[in-house]
Amino acid sequence: MTTKPWDLPTACAKYSAAGVPGVGLWREWLEGRPLEESRRMLEDHGLRAVSLVRSGFYPYLNEAEKQAACDDNIKALDEAAAVGAPQVVLVCGAKPELSLPENRRHITEGIASLIDHAASVGVKLSIEPLHPMYADCRSAVNTVGQCNDMIDQLGDEWVGIAADVYHIWWDPQLAQEIKRAGKRIIAFHVCDWMTPTKDFLTDRGLMGEGCIDNRGIRRLVESTGFDGPIEVEVFSTRHWARDQDAYLSDIIEAYKEHV
Amino acid sequence: MTTKPWDLPTACAKYSAAGVPGVGLWREWLEGRPLEESRRMLEDHGLRAVSLVRSGFYPYLNEAEKQAACDDNIKALDEAAAVGAPQVVLVCGAKPELSLPENRRHITEGIASLIDHAASVGVKLSIEPLHPMYADCRSAVNTVGQCNDMIDQLGDEWVGIAADVYHIWWDPQLAQEIKRAGKRIIAFHVCDWMTPTKDFLTDRGLMGEGCIDNRGIRRLVESTGFDGPIEVEVFSTRHWARDQDAYLSDIIEAYKEHV
Repeated sequence: MTTKPWDLPTACAKYSAAGVPGVGLWREWLEGRPLEESRRMLEDHGLRAVSLVRSGFYPYLNEAEKQAACDDNIKALDEAAAVGAPQVVLVCGAKPELSLPENRRHITEGIASLIDHAASVGVKLSIEPLHPMYADCRSAVNTVGQCNDMIDQLGDEWVGIAADVYHIWWDPQLAQEIKRAGKRIIAFHVCDWMTPTKDFLTDRGLMGEGCIDNRGIRRLVESTGFDGPIEVEVFSTRHWARDQDAYLSDIIEAYKEHV
Repeated sequence: MTTKPWDLPTACAKYSAAGVPGVGLWREWLEGRPLEESRRMLEDHGLRAVSLVRSGFYPYLNEAEKQAACDDNIKALDEAAAVGAPQVVLVCGAKPELSLPENRRHITEGIASLIDHAASVGVKLSIEPLHPMYADCRSAVNTVGQCNDMIDQLGDEWVGIAADVYHIWWDPQLAQEIKRAGKRIIAFHVCDWMTPTKDFLTDRGLMGEGCIDNRGIRRLVESTGFDGPIEVEVFSTRHWARDQDAYLSDIIEAYKEHV
């Protein structure tokens, strides 16, 4: 999604040529071809499928919505298994019509109902806490501490945490909750926070453009033992409008200098 | 600020006629006339000065900025005393050029340096935690829990907390931290969170228009013993564009129904 203008074949070719070792796969990019073909495309380019993004969206207003969410989450786990991704990143969802406790109950129950299927296909469920500015309609899970409380209930064999600096950088309890999470952190995303931020969704910065201490948060995450791939996840209309070859080269520079 | 198109004389007349018992005074509204005259205007209309809004903005890049912030905070305390407001609301500030720990150190030290003057004029310093989406450039104090940690250090004789639902509604630790705060909560602001929110600053809703559980948060706050005035604080270009007499009537309705 960071290089949104490129389709999967283009991204595979470009990343591979630039020495990028893996990719977070957004489901939209898998549409229109057999999953086995996407898997082979990654393999042929020596690229690792780091994660499948995204499912979740558990809160519901009626039984039909509940069932649709469940079906889509099962489908996402199957897709991840098919393309060789070890985890599905969960954007947990929120409905402004429901109270926060009700949203959070739907989310916890929704994830719990998927654990058996996750185990059967060998794919982990990775809860991504989203920034509190998304608590109304995108996710009622908003801090690493809250993920820890949820995973205390859910167990951590098939449920982990995707830590994205954009969502968690401001948290006064970040260091202690990352430490508490320990091995639960199974994904780590970097980008930056722009001042001013002009759009709630698509005005992220490249690492070094904003105020997030990417390197400091990386140290916290790696001190838990995390040694997985670090994903650059920048949603930016500004960067999407640029020449994507030059942008990829800037991403790699920014990663080396600021992560 | 909720009825921004009105100046202080107009607001005093309208609020008084509508039976509103008090007002949060923004400093801009006091400019252009002697403070004693503003104080008498409030008294003549039977209006209580609930708070003076705002000072703070402690983080600095150089000594000149540090001194200017200090001077302005002293001035705000004096103004509050002069108009009879028992507290100054602090927007603590943040500089994207500084690390979060550095911003937070400047804030704690800045508040500490004002306590003697606050005591001498009999005006409390009220820390308002701001929503995490403002952590880059408006306030590096973002949760009630963080305020509690700061006040553990600063003492609570002259330092309290202004709890505004807009900033804190999403917090999974809200109930426990409000309970921990107890008598430290000396101001309570209500409004609502719109879905979608179209602007970072001026797209708040009137209570009942959005997803915040104002009544539930009021119960939490009042269970600490808080019995002060509840302030409606809505920044909204949409509502500012309306007829303000009709709007004031809607505010009172919304307050009765949703707070």
